[in-house]
Amino acid sequence: MLKAAINTDIFKESIDVMAAMVTECRMHISPGGFSTRAVDTANVAMVSLELSAGAFSSFDATESDIGLDINKMKNIVAMMEKDDTLSLDLPEGGHKIEMSFSGYKYSIALLDVNTVRKDPNPPTINLPGKVVISGSVLYNSIKAAALVSDKIAFGIDPEKGIFYMEADGDMDHIYYELPKDDLVSFVPAEARSLFSLDYLKDLGRVMSKSDQVEIHIGMDHPVKFAFSIADGKGNVEYLLAPRIEAD
Amino acid sequence: MLKAAINTDIFKESIDVMAAMVTECRMHISPGGFSTRAVDTANVAMVSLELSAGAFSSFDATESDIGLDINKMKNIVAMMEKDDTLSLDLPEGGHKIEMSFSGYKYSIALLDVNTVRKDPNPPTINLPGKVVISGSVLYNSIKAAALVSDKIAFGIDPEKGIFYMEADGDMDHIYYELPKDDLVSFVPAEARSLFSLDYLKDLGRVMSKSDQVEIHIGMDHPVKFAFSIADGKGNVEYLLAPRIEAD
Amino acid sequence: MLKAAINTDIFKESIDVMAAMVTECRMHISPGGFSTRAVDTANVAMVSLELSAGAFSSFDATESDIGLDINKMKNIVAMMEKDDTLSLDLPEGGHKIEMSFSGYKYSIALLDVNTVRKDPNPPTINLPGKVVISGSVLYNSIKAAALVSDKIAFGIDPEKGIFYMEADGDMDHIYYELPKDDLVSFVPAEARSLFSLDYLKDLGRVMSKSDQVEIHIGMDHPVKFAFSIADGKGNVEYLLAPRIEAD
Repeated sequence: MLKAAINTDIFKESIDVMAAMVTECRMHISPGGFSTRAVDTANVAMVSLELSAGAFSSFDATESDIGLDINKMKNIVAMMEKDDTLSLDLPEGGHKIEMSFSGYKYSIALLDVNTVRKDPNPPTINLPGKVVISGSVLYNSIKAAALVSDKIAFGIDPEKGIFYMEADGDMDHIYYELPKDDLVSFVPAEARSLFSLDYLKDLGRVMSKSDQVEIHIGMDHPVKFAFSIADGKGNVEYLLAPRIEAD
Repeated sequence: MLKAAINTDIFKESIDVMAAMVTECRMHISPGGFSTRAVDTANVAMVSLELSAGAFSSFDATESDIGLDINKMKNIVAMMEKDDTLSLDLPEGGHKIEMSFSGYKYSIALLDVNTVRKDPNPPTINLPGKVVISGSVLYNSIKAAALVSDKIAFGIDPEKGIFYMEADGDMDHIYYELPKDDLVSFVPAEARSLFSLDYLKDLGRVMSKSDQVEIHIGMDHPVKFAFSIADGKGNVEYLLAPRIEAD
Repeated sequence: MLKAAINTDIFKESIDVMAAMVTECRMHISPGGFSTRAVDTANVAMVSLELSAGAFSSFDATESDIGLDINKMKNIVAMMEKDDTLSLDLPEGGHKIEMSFSGYKYSIALLDVNTVRKDPNPPTINLPGKVVISGSVLYNSIKAAALVSDKIAFGIDPEKGIFYMEADGDMDHIYYELPKDDLVSFVPAEARSLFSLDYLKDLGRVMSKSDQVEIHIGMDHPVKFAFSIADGKGNVEYLLAPRIEAD
């Protein structure tokens, strides 16, 4: 059972977070809020989203799992006005969620939870380096790298005290560095890993709206991006597997 | 013969009204102004437009029928500046109309009137229910319905005193109602009919610019939309045949 | 060798000038600045660009020719912020140019000069008529003509004291004239030539940003457009061969 109301901007932001990686997901509803974890079809990336009950203007729920068609949600949020209120209503055991806003009542069929991929276990990885930068700087670097290559390296040089991003094309090369003084936070550690820009472009677009994105990296390890949404009442993590440098 | 001048915004609006349904039309020119009636190629919808001489800044004309290529007109109005003056000049028996604006002189070939479909007789139908709503509310409902279905129902529930719009997809459902107090005008009558959204999306875009659109409906009958353009100096009617509910 | 800094807007403008006609060019670098001349693949049009050292905020160079991939440059300038500074660095005999802006360092491979078409000799032609008009008026006429035809005629009627542009479609005709009093400058001479709008649309978009474009024309001769960029510190010429009027 769910009976809740939420600002349309926050709901839209949450759908965007998921849509950057998957087309459907299992959403866990509990008295504490919403939470979900999903991997993309190629098993290369994982998203985890937690939206606490405090992110809603009203929230009353019992434990349940629902299957959400993220593509359909994207179309519906596109119809919502900015800064409006969305009401969500799901009866106990119901197969349709009612979404109301601006006088409209949508009755949307949920996916059968059993047809949606089980949520993955979060992998245990140790990523010793950490920097915090603005999402727009991160996204600009991703777009810049995409001009010359389909891969980007993120790295930390502890001795120089810098975080860098670098892309190597067949012919061209692009390099961008941020000294620790320009970083919101800097935990130095020998780190450098290579990632597919295909994935990063989609994730970067979402992260570009965030003031502060934590980047956790290691040596040829996955990268973890962590940032908050909904004025800190929601948390997002993206995990992306590395590419082999010798490619 | 025609010698007239008109504000480019009004001329553009008139072309947009026609372009939502047809690619060519017979325009009747008389000392009283312009008028035309046309049906779409599938005979499902009809448009009627009347633009009185008062909608023009100057107007001098004798009776004549001309064949207008609406597609070509759309391209030409796209070149016009906003709030500029368009001069129209057609000699008696001429086959080209001269359109002048911003220093340009276009000489545009007219279509042979005999190759353009005769204008249809307006059908005699009795539509007992009537509401008046803003064009933007109407268009938003059409777009919302298009998310879940290819058909929309318009209806009146006289007992509840509401006008409603409803769309049923294979899985999802959307419903929107307006109580009579939210309507500019409300003539209750048992009414409900189903319409193709394909047509309504095009008509809705044009109507969205109008503050007040009259909607006339009945039970499984066509819908008639009526609204004015050119500060009331022009009148438009769209008539759209219903779809069978059992579809 | 080249070591220079330039406002990103001026660099972007220069790349746009070239991109309207070619996808690569030989750029001559000398202590006096940049210069290049190139013809399009069909040998119908020629562009010549000179950007003096004064257009740069700092400029130090020895003589050399480099091969520039204009398409790649277009993508890179799209990443630059407005009114920012671009640093260019090319070591003596180097095959890569380093482009730095907003903290990014791009290392871009140059084309082998020998694989880029030699710059053409400028043809000696005598174009007796000349008018100076605003680039936006010129571009609007080109767009207007494109509605009815794929060719446009530019002409001067010395007796009437007018410059005119005219396009003839199968059915429609468009005409635009400017009396000499509306022209910044007017050198009358019997002149009329016909040109392909395919080329002019691309050139027109670039020229539309210029306040004053010199148009030099003759009888069935090429047209030459001349205008300045970079606050007069750069000069551009476009030359376009005529089409046969009898077409």
